[in-house]
Formats: sequence, structure tokens, C-alpha cells
Amino acid sequence: MINPRAATSPQFPIEPWTVREESLDLDHIGRTESIFALSNGHLGLRGNLDEGEPFGEPGTYLSGVHELRPLPYAEAGYGFPESGQTVINVTNGKLIRLLVDDEPFDVRYGVLLHHERVLDMRAGTLRREVEWLSPAGQTIRLTTTRLVSLTQRAVAAIHYEVEAVGDAARVVVQSELIVNEPQNVPRAADPRVAASLEAPLVGVDHSEHRGEIVLVHRTTRSGLQVAAAMDHFIEAEGAVDVEHDCSTDLARTTISTVLEPGQKLCVVKWLGYGWSSVRSSAALRDQASAAIHAARATGWDGLVDEQRRYLDDYWERADVVVDGDPELQQAIRFNMFQLVQAGARAEGQAIASKGLTGSGYDGHSFWDTEAFVLPFLSATVPHAAADALWWRHSTLPQARERAAALRLKGAAFPWRTISGDECSGYWPAGTGAFHVNSAVAIAAVDHVLATGDEAFEEGIATELLVETARLWVSLGHTAADGCFHIDGVTGPDEYSAIADDNVYTNLMAARNLRAAVDAATRYRTVAERLSVTADELGEWTAAANNMFVPYDERLRVHPQANGFTAHEMWDFEGTTDDKYPLFRSFPYFDLYRKQVAKQADLVMAMQRFPDSFDEEQTARNFAYYEALTVRDSSLSSTTQSAVAAQLGHLDLAMSYLAEGALADLRDLHDNTSDGLHLAAAAGSWITITNGFGGMRFDAGWLSFRPYLPPRLDGIAFGITYRGSHLRVAMGREQTEYLVLSGDPLTITHHGEALEVAGDIVARDNPPPPSYPAPSQPSGRVPPLRSTSG
Amino acid sequence: MINPRAATSPQFPIEPWTVREESLDLDHIGRTESIFALSNGHLGLRGNLDEGEPFGEPGTYLSGVHELRPLPYAEAGYGFPESGQTVINVTNGKLIRLLVDDEPFDVRYGVLLHHERVLDMRAGTLRREVEWLSPAGQTIRLTTTRLVSLTQRAVAAIHYEVEAVGDAARVVVQSELIVNEPQNVPRAADPRVAASLEAPLVGVDHSEHRGEIVLVHRTTRSGLQVAAAMDHFIEAEGAVDVEHDCSTDLARTTISTVLEPGQKLCVVKWLGYGWSSVRSSAALRDQASAAIHAARATGWDGLVDEQRRYLDDYWERADVVVDGDPELQQAIRFNMFQLVQAGARAEGQAIASKGLTGSGYDGHSFWDTEAFVLPFLSATVPHAAADALWWRHSTLPQARERAAALRLKGAAFPWRTISGDECSGYWPAGTGAFHVNSAVAIAAVDHVLATGDEAFEEGIATELLVETARLWVSLGHTAADGCFHIDGVTGPDEYSAIADDNVYTNLMAARNLRAAVDAATRYRTVAERLSVTADELGEWTAAANNMFVPYDERLRVHPQANGFTAHEMWDFEGTTDDKYPLFRSFPYFDLYRKQVAKQADLVMAMQRFPDSFDEEQTARNFAYYEALTVRDSSLSSTTQSAVAAQLGHLDLAMSYLAEGALADLRDLHDNTSDGLHLAAAAGSWITITNGFGGMRFDAGWLSFRPYLPPRLDGIAFGITYRGSHLRVAMGREQTEYLVLSGDPLTITHHGEALEVAGDIVARDNPPPPSYPAPSQPSGRVPPLRSTSG
Repeated sequence: MINPRAATSPQFPIEPWTVREESLDLDHIGRTESIFALSNGHLGLRGNLDEGEPFGEPGTYLSGVHELRPLPYAEAGYGFPESGQTVINVTNGKLIRLLVDDEPFDVRYGVLLHHERVLDMRAGTLRREVEWLSPAGQTIRLTTTRLVSLTQRAVAAIHYEVEAVGDAARVVVQSELIVNEPQNVPRAADPRVAASLEAPLVGVDHSEHRGEIVLVHRTTRSGLQVAAAMDHFIEAEGAVDVEHDCSTDLARTTISTVLEPGQKLCVVKWLGYGWSSVRSSAALRDQASAAIHAARATGWDGLVDEQRRYLDDYWERADVVVDGDPELQQAIRFNMFQLVQAGARAEGQAIASKGLTGSGYDGHSFWDTEAFVLPFLSATVPHAAADALWWRHSTLPQARERAAALRLKGAAFPWRTISGDECSGYWPAGTGAFHVNSAVAIAAVDHVLATGDEAFEEGIATELLVETARLWVSLGHTAADGCFHIDGVTGPDEYSAIADDNVYTNLMAARNLRAAVDAATRYRTVAERLSVTADELGEWTAAANNMFVPYDERLRVHPQANGFTAHEMWDFEGTTDDKYPLFRSFPYFDLYRKQVAKQADLVMAMQRFPDSFDEEQTARNFAYYEALTVRDSSLSSTTQSAVAAQLGHLDLAMSYLAEGALADLRDLHDNTSDGLHLAAAAGSWITITNGFGGMRFDAGWLSFRPYLPPRLDGIAFGITYRGSHLRVAMGREQTEYLVLSGDPLTITHHGEALEVAGDIVARDNPPPPSYPAPSQPSGRVPPLRSTSG
Repeated sequence: MINPRAATSPQFPIEPWTVREESLDLDHIGRTESIFALSNGHLGLRGNLDEGEPFGEPGTYLSGVHELRPLPYAEAGYGFPESGQTVINVTNGKLIRLLVDDEPFDVRYGVLLHHERVLDMRAGTLRREVEWLSPAGQTIRLTTTRLVSLTQRAVAAIHYEVEAVGDAARVVVQSELIVNEPQNVPRAADPRVAASLEAPLVGVDHSEHRGEIVLVHRTTRSGLQVAAAMDHFIEAEGAVDVEHDCSTDLARTTISTVLEPGQKLCVVKWLGYGWSSVRSSAALRDQASAAIHAARATGWDGLVDEQRRYLDDYWERADVVVDGDPELQQAIRFNMFQLVQAGARAEGQAIASKGLTGSGYDGHSFWDTEAFVLPFLSATVPHAAADALWWRHSTLPQARERAAALRLKGAAFPWRTISGDECSGYWPAGTGAFHVNSAVAIAAVDHVLATGDEAFEEGIATELLVETARLWVSLGHTAADGCFHIDGVTGPDEYSAIADDNVYTNLMAARNLRAAVDAATRYRTVAERLSVTADELGEWTAAANNMFVPYDERLRVHPQANGFTAHEMWDFEGTTDDKYPLFRSFPYFDLYRKQVAKQADLVMAMQRFPDSFDEEQTARNFAYYEALTVRDSSLSSTTQSAVAAQLGHLDLAMSYLAEGALADLRDLHDNTSDGLHLAAAAGSWITITNGFGGMRFDAGWLSFRPYLPPRLDGIAFGITYRGSHLRVAMGREQTEYLVLSGDPLTITHHGEALEVAGDIVARDNPPPPSYPAPSQPSGRVPPLRSTSG
């Protein structure tokens, strides 16, 4: 157990490429639904049982498909968003009911002789094996494999095989498309969890033709239409009877046969989805049908092959090896698998903080997509990062409108959204967190640095930079001290709000402003189209150069925002374990006014801007914030890990890495059932590369400062940098660099410049820095990571 | 016109003791309903027309009678109040419909030949005279007089007289008790206005006996029962037919007669009210009936006499004379009349910010009752101030519970409430405004100073002081600088929030702490009962002595809270008139982070603690905050006026006094229809006494520093101080002091000690200080007060 809050079940056996559940745990079925979710970033299926029940939360998601709901306020204020967006559970096509001699297969009845589910991260499939003794005494064996295609984004498929064991059995398979499924989860207790929207879809069209069925529905308020289609391939030894039914909210293909012992009925179910806010229902119906057609033509084996090839390529480029900690190895691969699932085909839509694995946070996208997930994607699946930023760019009209409503210039991106409109109903932790804008802008800058993609820089990044630079200069002001100040904003730490001169925000804004000047100077046509004036460039430069960074001379540390270090320290000794996470036990009022950090804030500033803090200052600041950071946010530990690693606190860095990497496999925040924590997943990769590897590229070249934790035998990772595939392998003594494909790269290893091409270049690892071990708040000390896992 | 926003209608003729509306203005009927509201602090009747319609908002209020409503949040948080309270319009007994030859009397039909309403502030009545030509050509004359008894708190009465003019007329009078009246006001646009609650009352009992009718109802959620009773005395020359109907939500006494020209039908309607959260419906029915019985026994003339005697006594003790500005004279008497109406018989219930004159602010009581209204009552109707503080004291259980929920010690009084539970749905401007607690505590201290009431001090004040002192020490902390800091709270200015070391809050807290030490030391039995320890006394003393007061050395002014003066200045030049009040045009986010004050904050600190700022500092601070205070709150101008007066800015002080005094008679905030602004009303009295008169008594004796504005010929006021009635008359050259009754008083006049008894003591007025005139934000300069009114 790595954390006092760590869940003890389900325990998955430690295996390098799979997550295996060896027996069904109905008490935590919501958790496994998230962990076994399949997605390609466009279409997501929660790991619900084929037969639909029992469930924690049924979930079939199409990225961007949402319904609106009014945002209520006890006391409203000017500029409070009036309408929220909530991801909806669309037409469920993964449902296949089975009746055995007229008895419904239900894991809660009869005897479950065997139940195993395996998420295969190389195959990109979820496989389930069941042996079930019906209440009437008939045994059947059920084997299903589900995939959501990474190559055909509108397509999912299920390979469904049922076998009679012992006696002959009459089996009936009902394969369905079902709409407006009942949701039974009581959720009001946790404000972070999605508002449940009952029956969000209204029937528009339904049709059946030669066994292919399409249902088209629309949402009531958001005006979106969704088409879902299914078709089947059926194989059996005996006679098979097939019927199709189709009505507004239910389509059903019923397949019945009698299986002699050992005989199997095999059904392949094709699913095709489409949605649009503008296209007609006829066009959508045809789109879903076309998807099915292509999938049928590819065939089940073809889809499986495509899936594996896609993932083989991904793992070859990006795999991370953690030698000496098999549990972490599994967790990091799981995280990377979920990240590629979330981003691969999101094309034109937001990557939500939980991907398409659950309805937590209403399916919203936050700053952490840009701050955590995109650095990962830029280095591993660059086109996915570009797509995600293209989505942000497409929301500039709403962001400009929001800035105008706030009486600001440029563009103000929303704190939380699906379509681009601000959906935050609590402004001190929403609108006030302007750092989301620099997260967007700097993600674009970093993407250009990582890829060298000038078309993207010209077409997407420059406009993002210009409009956010305009925002920053209108948001801040030059005070009598000659410095540029940004007052009254909320930094990353959600246990503080509305403070002056948040260091992270100010440094990010300065970088944003400088990058905007640079881009607007180089892309003059874009700058002219955006009416960028020379005065503006001067203003941006001055604001960046004069950006204020507060410092506490007495304590010799940076306050995370002006005045922070003068506040009363939180009473950690008097706060018992059951009071965590603190925001569920204490009012914001109390949290905001005291020294307690939900998550890394100043430490994140140091991670992002290592050159703005000398090493001794970094060590002092790190120790100071370690003592007051409670890690109630899943975004925290990996940032702490990365900075700890570079300061030589390698055991601590391992502990924090484990906390981030195992967030979902161990359900450390007790809410994996609402969906996975993608930022923690990406953070664990950032810790590996940026923390232990010391990787940076913001100076225009790749640099590394690797420190291997003593508890590991090695760490290896691959990244794509400007089209070249670089493999970095950190051993006990040396670190090896190798370009697997693409042009040679000039990199630095602990400051030494190296030319790396197709042959391994190895360099010794210097000893890490040595600083006194920092301490954490009472009760929040992370357990020491033992290599036994 | 005194203000760019000043309404131009209705204009009331300037008369010293009355507010007269000479013709009915249906466009502003809501406004006159508030201005013509009658109340005794227990029962309030809006100035609705007798016949019920048209109306702005029908209103019959019983102090404390409210319904609960859920407080919704787009994103909830720990400790957010879940239930709000809203004043409800109870059984309407003021309704008297009239039919003339079968045509309903309605001012919108026929011809209104004459319509006059007169609020008589010496009689305590609202008189209405109407001459109406019906559509069918019949003229009638209607004369009604309404009163809400200041001597019999459960009683209201209406003298209703109708006369046929020209021709004989058949008249039918329907006198009603009506429940759950429809409300037609669309209110969602302004978040400050009450949530409308439709049909809040459910029938429990109704009965009629010998023409006396009682209806008993209950609220659905708050569990209160309300009884309303009526009876009539009828006088006419001809035959009169009388019928009584009584059902769940409607009681009706119908009186018909034929009036020959010049003949009159006269009806006196008695109304009795009662409510309770615990007593049975039978007990309440009897209570209302008993009230009617007593009123009948007193008779109409008796009630009118009692009313005038009560008010004669009040005016004799308290009247303010403003010689040279008749409009201000009228306004100040109107304000004082409304204040006595609000407080006289509130006994055990809160005095709401709008009294019982409208449903604005949901009928809630805020800090301004203690900070503005109680200083007035303590000096004019002391028992009413004691009652109001007794109410606060009775809510200590809820306040202790709230403090515990906030993880604080002692008691945390609610920002807004009816019954004592926190009803604020936006914590940065609610829970965060802890200064409400010192307003309560210091009002109790000041009441003791003004009255010398030791029983009150022992029974009420000491416990209030102890529990608030406990709150302050748990809220603040001693930092490394050795000072006591109160971080992250909201001061009086609602355009700032959640700031550190608000000067007003800190000074009030220090006074609160010192007073708590003093009271707990003197009343040892109380202190023992409250388990006050010696350690606590030491802690309170230390916190008070070390209380931090921030200062901006560069600007040589006090920031209203730490860091305030470093913030960006609001762009006043770029803010057009139509953008005021700013909170309706700009988000809190933007207001909070810039230098702009909705209302006096630091200036209020200087008014309350003149000894904490030398005069030059006061002048510098005053000038600084004048330039950034927009007076979007009705609480602002009178505080500014008081400080301006003592600094010798006497013309400015007059302008601000006028703005406060005329807030409702001129509807300067365009929301008088929602109810009157009692704090502004009280503020105008504070400006007279504390501002122009320089009256203080916090050192333990009465001191005056009078400065007469050059535009006036004199100001006189009366106060009750420790049982003595002191009359102060400021003339052009001298100020005269006289004790009208009671013991002689030792006072100071500009520092000179005087013994004042039954003979006038006169002293010269020294010239006022002279400082450069301060300037106000662009567009917010108050018009110079001209004595022509």
C-alpha cells in the first residue's frame, strides 16, 4: 500500500502488458468500468459487462456530445455562466444479453465458476472469459472480446462467443442498441461528479435494412444529433434463428440456437457512431452505416490486426521501461495506454480530464489537458497534441466573447468546458484561474519546440499566443514599483484563490508574452490579420520583462502568491486522516486563508521554469512547500516527484511517482469509478522523462540531466523529437542515447553536448545533488516505495 | 436633483411633518408602496391601495415569518448554507374592495378626479382621499385612514369612509382577509431582490363568530403558523346589509347600502395578527381574536390618540431640526419615522435591512442593523435597541453551530438571516464578512455606554462579547512579525473580498476583544458560566494589543486591506454612467482586484476609531478613498459625510448627507419599490449627530465637536443618554446644550468640559479644519447641495 487512502481491492496481478481481473468484484464494479474502458478519443465505452447489469455507471460517450443544463446560483452575479454542459451517455451498443434455457445470464444469479477480464495494452482489446452455472444447472462458457478501433474512429466491435458445457443448451442472444438507459448512481454528495441527466436523447429516426439497424437521436437543448448503427456476423454449427426489432429507443437483433455440448455460437457485433451539430439526420444515419460497412469489409481479424499494428508502432516509439519495479512498470504502461486511447482520435474535440472513461467532472476539459496531457502527446503521438490544440483554437470565438464579457482584451479560455463555453459555476476556482490561458499558449509553444511544425506554428500557435498575450496585458498592470503585476487571480493550488502575483501564473504569463512577441514578429501575415501593432509588441515585451515575482526575504523562499508565507500555517497536527481531502471537511474560506496547498503550485513553477530559480533556492522552496502540500489533487504528486528527482531526493521522487502512476490502478483518490485521472497518468510520464531524465527542450534543443533512483535497475523511454525517434536508457552507471529513426540529434547530457544518431552514445551519470530530506505534513508522508511493489 | 441617478418622480411637496402624494403615479406605484408602508416592527403593511390593485407588490409582513427555500449552487462546497429564508407576504387584511352601482372601484377605470395620500409622521397614519367618477357616471368620495398601532403591536386598523356625490349610489364594500395573493413582479434580473415564493401558506383553520373572522395558516417548510383576524364597526344613515363568508384562503365581510348624495358609509376595520413556531392553531386563533378585542375596546379614536401620544413622546425626545433646508428636514423626519416604525415593537425578532416595508433582500437582516440602525435606536428608543440585541443573543445557539461548522471557536453570526441561520449563498461576500460579529458586539457595548444598562450588560452584552472574542482569536493568528493578523476576510466594501488585514475589521475586532476582557472581568459569574479562562483573557488582550494595521509608507495612506493600494486603479474615466452600479456591469472578479470601493470601508474605520488616526492622516486617507469610492451602496454616503464634516469639508458633507437622507424619498438607488433603505436612513441621523455634531461617547462620557455647514442656519437634535434627555442646538455662532429631563450630564464641547442641566449652556463653535477639497471618481461627484432644496 502506497498511501493511507490506497484501496486494497481490486488487486490486479502484476503483469507487464495486461491488467487482469481474476474474479469479478461487484463492490467495486464502477472502478473496473473505468479501468477497463476502451476509447479512441472519439468514441468511448466504459468497461460495463456485456449483459448490461449490474453496473456502476453505464457509459458510452462520443467526444463533444453533451447536453446543457442551467447553472443555478443562490446569489447570482454579473458574468456568472448561466449554462453548463454535461457529457451524456449516448446510445449503448455494447449491450448483448444472453438467455440460457430461458434464464437470463446475470452474474448475480447462478454460480460464477470463472470470471476473468483482461485489458491487453498491446492488443488494444478487453477480453472476458466466463464460466457460469445457471440456476437451472446448465453450464455455459462465454468469451467476449471488445475493441474500440484506433484506426477507424467511428467503429467499435465485439467478438461474442458462447459455448454449451456438459449439456445441450438453447441460447438466445439479444444484441441491442439502447437509448436513455437508467442511471442508478446517487451522486449529489460529491460536487465534482457529473450532474445526472435523465433521458437526454429524443428519437429522430430509426431504420433496419438487411439486419443493419440505425437509430438517430437528438439532444433537447444542445441541439446535437447522434446516430448509432449495428450489424452482426453470426456463426454457429446448428440452425440459427435471427430477428430484428427496431423502435425509437431500442433496436434489437435476437439470435437463437441450440448448442450441443462443446458447440459454440459466435457473433461479431459491429458498431458505428456519428454525431453532428449541423448535419441532417439522414446524413448522420448514412455516416454511421458507412462506418459499419468499412468495419465489415475490414473484418474482425482485420480490425484486430490494425489495432495491434497501431499499438505496436506506438509502443515501439514511446514505451517506458521501469526496470526493478514491475508494479510501476505495469502502471505506467496502463497510463500510457489510457492516454493514447484518450488522445489518438479526439480530432477536433476536447480531451476531457477523464477522457471518455466516465462522467466525472461532467466530462469537462480543464487546464490539465494542456499542462499535463499535451506534453506527453507532443512527444509520443504528436498529431494528437496538434489536434487538441486545433480544438482550442477553434474555440477562440467563445474565448474572445468571454474575455469581452470580463471586460478584458484578447481571449479568455474557459476553466472547464466541453464545447468551449465557460461552464464553471464557482468563479474563485474557475474564471479566477487565468493560468489556463497560458497552459494553452505554452502547450502550443512546446508543441512547436518538440515537433518543429511551422505550419502549426503559423496556423494555430501564433493566434493562440497573440490573443492570450492581449489577455495578460489587459489583466495585469504596471504599478508604482515599475513592475507588472497580475492581481486577484487563482493559481494551480485550489486551496488558495484570488491572490496577487501568483508566481506560477506570472512566470507562465511572461513566457506566453515573450513567445507571442516572437511568433508575431516571425509570422507577420498572421500578426497583420490580427491587427497586432508595434505598440502591442512593446507592451508585451515590457510586461514580460517587468513581471513581478514576489519573494519573502525573511524566510528566503518564494511565496506561491504575494503574502502567502505570512498566512497562518494550517493545523496539520490537528487534522486527522479522516478529514482528507480537506475540501470535503473544511470550507474554502478557511483553506484559502491559510498556508496549505492542495497541490504543487510554486513547485510547479520551479518545474516549468528551472532557470528562474537557482538550485539552492529550488531546494529551499521545495522543502518549504513540501511541509504544507497535502496532495488532495491527483495533479500534485508527479510535479513534486519531478522536482524532487532533480534535487536528488530520489526515494521521495519514487514515492510520489508511485502515487501518481497508481492513482487509478489502486484507486488512490477513491473516485476512479467516475473516470480515470489522465493528468496523473501523464504526470507519471512527465516525472520519468522530465524528473528522473531531466529532459527539457525549451531552450531549443533537447537536454537531459538523468538521475536514476537507487531502487531501480534502469529506466528507459522513447520520444519523438522533430521527427526523430530518440531512445534514452538510464542505467546504474551510465545513460545511453540512441536515435532509432530520423535525423541525428544534438542533445546535452548534464550539460555536455552530444551528437546522437543510429549508434548508442553512453555517458556516465554524475552523482545527484544532496539536500536534507524535506518533511511532509503530519499524516501525509508518502510511504517509502519498496521495489518489491 | 442631487444625483445623476436621482428619480424625478414622484415629487412630494416639501412639508415638515408629512409626505404627501398629490396625484397617483401608477408608473412608480411600487415605490410609494414602500414609502407609505406602515409598521410597528412586528406587523408591516405596504402602502398598497385599499382595493388591492393595481399593485407593485402586495405586502403584509409579520417580523420573523418566513419560508425556507433550498439554496442552489452550480458547484457546491463544504459549509455552504443549504437552506435560505425568505420573508413571505402573509394574510392580507388591508384589502377593502368597493363596488359602486355594481362597478368595481379601480383607479385604472373611470376618471380619478382627485387622489391624494398623506403619510403623517406625527399622527402615525396613512390617509387617502379619493374622488372618483365611475365609468357609469357616478361620483364617489372615498376617505381612508390606516394605522399600524405602535402601542398594540398585533393590531392594525382602517377607517374607511365612502360618500356618494351628486347622485344616489348603491355601494357594496367587500372587506377581506386574503391569503396567497398572486405576485406579479418579475424579479430575476436583480439578485438582491427576494425570491418569489408562490402560495406559501396552507390553511389550518378558519372560523367566523358574530362577524369576527379568524384564518389560521401554516408555512410548508419553516413550520410557522399565522393567525389573522378581522372585525368591523359599521355606521351608515340608511339600511345596511352585512354578510360574512369564510373559507380556507378567503374571508369576506360584505356591506351594502344605498347612499343618497352626501351620505356616507363608514367602516372601521380591525385587524389582529399572531404567529408562532410552537403554539397551537387554537392558541393563535385566540391570540388574534384577543388583539381584535383589545382594539375594539380601545376604539378607533382611542387607537389614533395612543398613536399620536407615542409619537409625540418620540419626537419630543428625538426630533432633528435642520434649519435652512426644508427638503432635508422632511427627509430626516421621514427617515426617523421609518426607523421607529421598524424598531419600536420588533421585540424578539430581527430588524430587517428594509424593515417591514418590502421583500427586498429576502427580508433579511444584515450587519447594518447593528452598525447603523442600533446606534440610532440606542440614543432615541433605547428599549428597541436592547430588544434587537436580545434577538441576536437568542440566536447564539445557531451562531455557535455556525462557528463550529467553520472550524472556529465562539459564535459566528450570519451575514444575512431572518431566524439566525446563515442564508448567504455567496461566501466571499457572506461568510467572509466576519465584521458582522464585531458589529453585533460593539452595538452591545455602545448600547451599554449610551444607556448605562448594567442588567443588559450582564445578561446580554457580556456573552455576546465573550463568544465573539473567541471567534476573533480563532480566526486570526500571531505571525512571525509578532502582530495579530486576520487574513482572508471581507470588509464592509463589497467591491473587495477575501483580503488580509482589513483595517476596519481589525480595529473593530481589537475593540471587541478589549471590551470582552473588560466585561468578563467585571461580570465574573457570567464569565464562569461561559468557562472563560485567565489564559483566554490574556490571549484576547494580546491579540487586541498586537492587532496589525497595514500602512502604505509610499503613499502615506492606510490601505483598506493589506495590498489594496498596490492594486490597479479602476478605470473611472472609461466607465460611463450607465455602467453604475458597477456590480451589474462588471464581474466580481474584476471589481475585487482593483482599487474601487463600493462603499466607505477605511473611511468607516476612521469614523468609528477617530483616535486611531491623527487628523492629518485622516485627511490624507479621506482624500485617497474619496477618489475611488463610487457609492454604489446606500450605506456609503452618510459615513463619508460624517468624516467629511469633522474634516471641515462641510459642503461635501451636506451633499453626502442629502444623498443618504433622500435615498428613498428620491429613490436614488432605483429600488425603493423593494423596500426602504433603513441603514441610509439611520446613517443620515448618524451624520447629523456624529458628523456635524461630532458626538461620541465611547470614552465613557458624551463629547461633541460641532461644525455647522455654512448653508444651514442651525441643526438641533435630541438624544437619550443614560436616562437623561439632552437637546443639542447648533447655531451659526454657538452650540447650545440643555438637559430636558433626567440627571445633569457632564459633556465636552470641542474638548471643554461642561456641566449641563435644566438651563441652556452655550459655547462658541470654533472654525472647522481646512483641508484641500477631495475629488471623486469621474461621474460620481455629488451635486452641490443648494439650500433651496
